[in-house]
Amino acid sequence: MADYQQMWANLGMDLEKHDVLCEVLPEAFGGVYLTQQDRPKGMDFYDFVVSEIHGVRPAEMLQHQKEGGKVFGTFCVYVPDEVVFAAGGIAAGLCGGSQFWVSGGEKVLPANTCPLIKASVGARLDKTCPFFLIPDMYVAENTCDGKKKAWEILAGEVPMHIIDIPQMKRERDVAAFAAEIRDFIGVVEKVTGKKINAESLGEAIKLINNKRRALQRVYNARKASPVPISGKDALLVTQINFYDDPARAAQMANNLADELEQRINNGTGVFPENAPRIMISGTPMAIPNWKLHHIVESLGAAIVVEESCTGTRYFENLVDETASTLDEQIRALAERYMKTNCACFTPNSARIDDIIRLADEYKVDGIIDTNLQFCNLYSTESYLIKQVMTERNLPIIHIETDYSEQDFEQLRTRVEAFLEMLRK
Amino acid sequence: MADYQQMWANLGMDLEKHDVLCEVLPEAFGGVYLTQQDRPKGMDFYDFVVSEIHGVRPAEMLQHQKEGGKVFGTFCVYVPDEVVFAAGGIAAGLCGGSQFWVSGGEKVLPANTCPLIKASVGARLDKTCPFFLIPDMYVAENTCDGKKKAWEILAGEVPMHIIDIPQMKRERDVAAFAAEIRDFIGVVEKVTGKKINAESLGEAIKLINNKRRALQRVYNARKASPVPISGKDALLVTQINFYDDPARAAQMANNLADELEQRINNGTGVFPENAPRIMISGTPMAIPNWKLHHIVESLGAAIVVEESCTGTRYFENLVDETASTLDEQIRALAERYMKTNCACFTPNSARIDDIIRLADEYKVDGIIDTNLQFCNLYSTESYLIKQVMTERNLPIIHIETDYSEQDFEQLRTRVEAFLEMLRK
Ligand code: SF4
Ligand code: SF4
Ligand code: SF4
Ligand code: SF4
Repeated sequence: MADYQQMWANLGMDLEKHDVLCEVLPEAFGGVYLTQQDRPKGMDFYDFVVSEIHGVRPAEMLQHQKEGGKVFGTFCVYVPDEVVFAAGGIAAGLCGGSQFWVSGGEKVLPANTCPLIKASVGARLDKTCPFFLIPDMYVAENTCDGKKKAWEILAGEVPMHIIDIPQMKRERDVAAFAAEIRDFIGVVEKVTGKKINAESLGEAIKLINNKRRALQRVYNARKASPVPISGKDALLVTQINFYDDPARAAQMANNLADELEQRINNGTGVFPENAPRIMISGTPMAIPNWKLHHIVESLGAAIVVEESCTGTRYFENLVDETASTLDEQIRALAERYMKTNCACFTPNSARIDDIIRLADEYKVDGIIDTNLQFCNLYSTESYLIKQVMTERNLPIIHIETDYSEQDFEQLRTRVEAFLEMLRK
Repeated sequence: MADYQQMWANLGMDLEKHDVLCEVLPEAFGGVYLTQQDRPKGMDFYDFVVSEIHGVRPAEMLQHQKEGGKVFGTFCVYVPDEVVFAAGGIAAGLCGGSQFWVSGGEKVLPANTCPLIKASVGARLDKTCPFFLIPDMYVAENTCDGKKKAWEILAGEVPMHIIDIPQMKRERDVAAFAAEIRDFIGVVEKVTGKKINAESLGEAIKLINNKRRALQRVYNARKASPVPISGKDALLVTQINFYDDPARAAQMANNLADELEQRINNGTGVFPENAPRIMISGTPMAIPNWKLHHIVESLGAAIVVEESCTGTRYFENLVDETASTLDEQIRALAERYMKTNCACFTPNSARIDDIIRLADEYKVDGIIDTNLQFCNLYSTESYLIKQVMTERNLPIIHIETDYSEQDFEQLRTRVEAFLEMLRK
């Protein structure tokens, strides 16, 4: 690894504490990822990104700032990155996926808060992650209770813009979201000092769409049997796409997709053809949260699709590229984003339709519906999901977990029993 | 108690289970309420209401339905009762405040849900509360995550209208809430078969304002030292006002206020003048949740004000009665309701201002900021509240609790230590 100590020191990081993280992460990654057999060559890039996780991309962001560019940190797939890139900025997803940051979050947040929120707040307050320290502005959103209130506390730390996400999906809610995008354009223009016009926004829409198309190709390959890529590897691709440069992200995902398509032609897979095909549905798994994927795939089942924000919700819908005026583009953005089915919306029956559709498209044998502990939105919704899937004879279990290792054995046992049932 | 067995049977209630509740409630009420010294005579009415809690008012509601009227059940002070009464309907607050109903709610909801939501859902599903079975429609709202998603499950049980409460308080949010009120008028007109016009809505606005004015008088009396009424009694008044007939509620509260004002003139109080004066701030205490009040006042401190939805948030703001057209009235309603500072809004610094103002008006010695367990909104907000109050040298503790008796001793110890500190 290159020497980034000076860069981290300049960012005001807690170097001593950060060293602890730098020591455990490679080991964790090695155990979960590098032990896999027959990985696609295209994963080398993602392995490299992880090996330099707090180095390469942060250095690029800092270079961008040195050249006068701005960086925006985000926490939800409802934030339209297109606006940031249209103004020559960089948008980077910041969600915290490590137990390492949870205790820092608990200093200001109730313990009964979902680990993703606690880790995100802790990563900032503890100063142990460069990504959380670099942004000129956080672009946060009103989605769940925990995030909505956590932003009020973080707002004391860093300039913050809040996007008010509607709670329903009526026509007036789409219009309300369009108004939020319009405001966001104004904010981004002010921070970057650059005007956004139909040309620049149109280009940014294509840029982000292309990344989505590349991820669609990777995911499409997972519909094949035997499956040419593990769920763990696919998850890592999505996780890194949250903060990587979008053009490079698209290129790397396209390279990987080329290879996966070749594998399909050759009939090569990473799991035996008869391995149970599993869908994970639920809350996002922010990097480096690979816990459930590791448990499931270590037991010989293949995760073939994630119905989550670190999965299909991230890339399934494209923005209409034929919109040509700023007004039309804003409307097209609003419509595209409002198609994403997060449990923060009510009713959210379209998410249930998604799960049914994906189970069919990916020829899923069983569904693991999961949510992070204390996520009331997804855990309550799991009741209705279980009801519908059971009616349709789609095997499903619900798992609530956090970032700790404490429930590892218990989860393993539950997943094992579920897989046993599927194999019968 | 009159014999309501037939009425309850007709409602499809689970009579056997209900009997258990009917047995424990009078005892609980006796222990908490009837042991108090020097209670105002005006409390007799409220004692009577409790003694016939599942009888008298439900019978009135059923009579109203028999005569062709409609009943609407509500769960939040953000639902504009005025609209219902303008159409000759009855609106009744349904929040569940008893541990008795929690297990019923846990059959469909995650255990990590606030007890108020679990009890409200359980009271309906278990069929042990007439109030939950009578309504022709539930008028629910998008406020917190738990309620928003619980309504999706309850919607399978009972006709449901959802009012989409904004998450922020900008001008466009007030306008959005006005649009929700307009929709709600349409829904109520449809259910009741009665048109709402400026005259009927104007009368309903006065009706509900009068109830608010009467409660304001009761609360104003609590500013006196010695305080002429216990916090427990004042809480009971507010709790019953949630579902009693609004004209009678106003009359009874005015009678009580007359008596309290007389007491102030006579210098009569229910606590010694040097008893610590406590503010409770936080989540609502639905009937029969008297737990924290009982602990605090049993230790010799006087609760003089509740900054909560079963307190000042319920009646502090009036609707402008000079609005004369339907449009103006809708706007006046929207403005009035959007003044209420619930933690579901962001930012919610106006609530902190409220607490500071109330502490001054009620000459408060200490604040107990409390929230029901798993209420992420209020528990997260408590961090900022504590910060501001500490800066202002206002003693404050934060207490999270539920409806069970398990933490009773622990809470007592914490409250005792807090009062000890105040007395120094
Ligand atoms: S789960 Fe919902 S709140 Fe979380 S990132 Fe996805 S859309 Fe946003
Ligand atoms: S997992 Fe749930 S509680 Fe956590 S940030 Fe996402 S929506 Fe909020
Ligand atoms: S605390 Fe908030 S959600 Fe609950 S009743 Fe009050 S305004 Fe409604
Ligand atoms: S106490 Fe909190 S979680 Fe419970 S219903 Fe009220 S706002 Fe929701």
